[in-house]
Amino acid sequence: MDQDILYHLALGSGSHDLVEMFGDVKFVCMGGTPKRMEQFAYTIMAEIGHKLPCGTTLQDISQFSYRYSMYKVGPVLSISHGMGIPSVGILLHEVIKLMYHAKVRDPVFFRIGTCGGIGYEGGTVVISEEAVDGALKNALELTVLGKNIQRPAKLDKRLVRELKALSDPEDPYDTVTGKTMCTYDFYEGQGRLDGAFCDFTETDKMEYLESIHKAGVVNIEMESLAFAALTHHAGIKAAVICVTLLDRLKGDQVLAPKEVLDEWQQRPTKLVCRYIKRYLQMKGRLSLDGHGSICVKSPRRFKLVQQESETYD
Amino acid sequence: MDQDILYHLALGSGSHDLVEMFGDVKFVCMGGTPKRMEQFAYTIMAEIGHKLPCGTTLQDISQFSYRYSMYKVGPVLSISHGMGIPSVGILLHEVIKLMYHAKVRDPVFFRIGTCGGIGYEGGTVVISEEAVDGALKNALELTVLGKNIQRPAKLDKRLVRELKALSDPEDPYDTVTGKTMCTYDFYEGQGRLDGAFCDFTETDKMEYLESIHKAGVVNIEMESLAFAALTHHAGIKAAVICVTLLDRLKGDQVLAPKEVLDEWQQRPTKLVCRYIKRYLQMKGRLSLDGHGSICVKSPRRFKLVQQESETYD
Repeated sequence: MDQDILYHLALGSGSHDLVEMFGDVKFVCMGGTPKRMEQFAYTIMAEIGHKLPCGTTLQDISQFSYRYSMYKVGPVLSISHGMGIPSVGILLHEVIKLMYHAKVRDPVFFRIGTCGGIGYEGGTVVISEEAVDGALKNALELTVLGKNIQRPAKLDKRLVRELKALSDPEDPYDTVTGKTMCTYDFYEGQGRLDGAFCDFTETDKMEYLESIHKAGVVNIEMESLAFAALTHHAGIKAAVICVTLLDRLKGDQVLAPKEVLDEWQQRPTKLVCRYIKRYLQMKGRLSLDGHGSICVKSPRRFKLVQQESETYD
Repeated sequence: MDQDILYHLALGSGSHDLVEMFGDVKFVCMGGTPKRMEQFAYTIMAEIGHKLPCGTTLQDISQFSYRYSMYKVGPVLSISHGMGIPSVGILLHEVIKLMYHAKVRDPVFFRIGTCGGIGYEGGTVVISEEAVDGALKNALELTVLGKNIQRPAKLDKRLVRELKALSDPEDPYDTVTGKTMCTYDFYEGQGRLDGAFCDFTETDKMEYLESIHKAGVVNIEMESLAFAALTHHAGIKAAVICVTLLDRLKGDQVLAPKEVLDEWQQRPTKLVCRYIKRYLQMKGRLSLDGHGSICVKSPRRFKLVQQESETYD
């Protein structure tokens, strides 16, 4: 191809200098809504002490796609993926191509999401060990040229352990690991009785939820299967960290007040911030400024020292 | 249930008077992006001469969901559905419940979208006769409580004919009908060679596209299967009208300039506007104001005359 148009990102290899724009990326963080990922961008900016030039602010790089929102804070990309496997799947194809065009080596991908807990109260942080579909299969099924193919939905085991180790015993909530079920529907697909239709009973539902609980499923959401399968297929280290909004063994509706939900959604973010900060500290990329505050070293100056494009590796 | 929280719409039967807010809705129009559906709201407002009170403007009713955008223009709702079956599926469950709570009788649902054409140039308007999956099956498959169920993905044949009859021979583009294929992925799932991965050849791809072309498929997109299946299951009259952005028999990438794509995306909108205007005219709901312009009669006054909640039926 002459050029590669990343249609749903409003970027292209012909129209943009993707190496210049994205060559220093190390972490790609994704989550459902544009709002949450804009907030994450400002949070990680404060956490790593990333400074913007005077008179500038963050801009949604993909604003003219009208599909996804993308913010860049030094080595961190923060992108909204919408809801469901197809939406996150399109984004992954285009972001993986973006990393390739930008010559980024060994990026780490995080999905920061919300979910229903299975046996865990609202507000619990869940790190996924692997993703399974609604029939407990650990693979993403795709119809390609009319034929069914399967892609293992594996996640990086070491990254799970590293993230778990970063949970703080002082945190006023639990951080757990386990299997994540990923469905194509929020209502019937997750055994909810409160959708527009429902052809099963409360008893059927509870039997099903108890059975998946016994099989090691700790939460249910709607993107992890594609996230795990496509990153694994591309050889990209990836993790899924979600907060539960309710315990599905106790109900279907999300009843917690908005302020509580907002606070809960900060929890997976905190864990990812700790991971990124620790990584940058270990690589000598964070330092204390004259006032004792943390700040990220200028990538430009750092590049001059390293003389390499994979600045953060 | 005491109250029904429509979580992804940021509405609830306890917190909002849904009959007062939505009781006069007759048409629910959905499309992918918030931007397009905001534009549609202003277009239909002009077309039916809907007047807002002095000093007011349209507001995104679901702005605090951060998921979907929703605008209301008299009898018309304009809502963004995001990308893919899961995203449109969640919305349909909640909008169907919304119609129920608002006591709306016999609403008509439209999906106004974009697609790849199969044997049709970019800019062609396609009205779907039925939706099929990537293996040409005319049903939505769902995993419910671990078991596979199927829902026929049927659309209203009469509505297809009525819409087709509203295409104007003067339109500088074709308006066609046929089968619409709906996939779970934009790249491999639609036989594109330009995704992050591709395990097939150009020859495999062309054989597949030619075979579905022969089977009557005229376009491919990512939402019609759930749209057709869930509205059909709910007994709601529904139609899918998309514009092609390219002919997939000739390529994979969307190469047309932004201004051209923007003009193309107005085309399905025009057809839906004609349908809604004709309906309101037939029901005596549109009249000429003192200046010879079309205007929609005030729903409030109309209600007083009819003394019924299903104002637009």
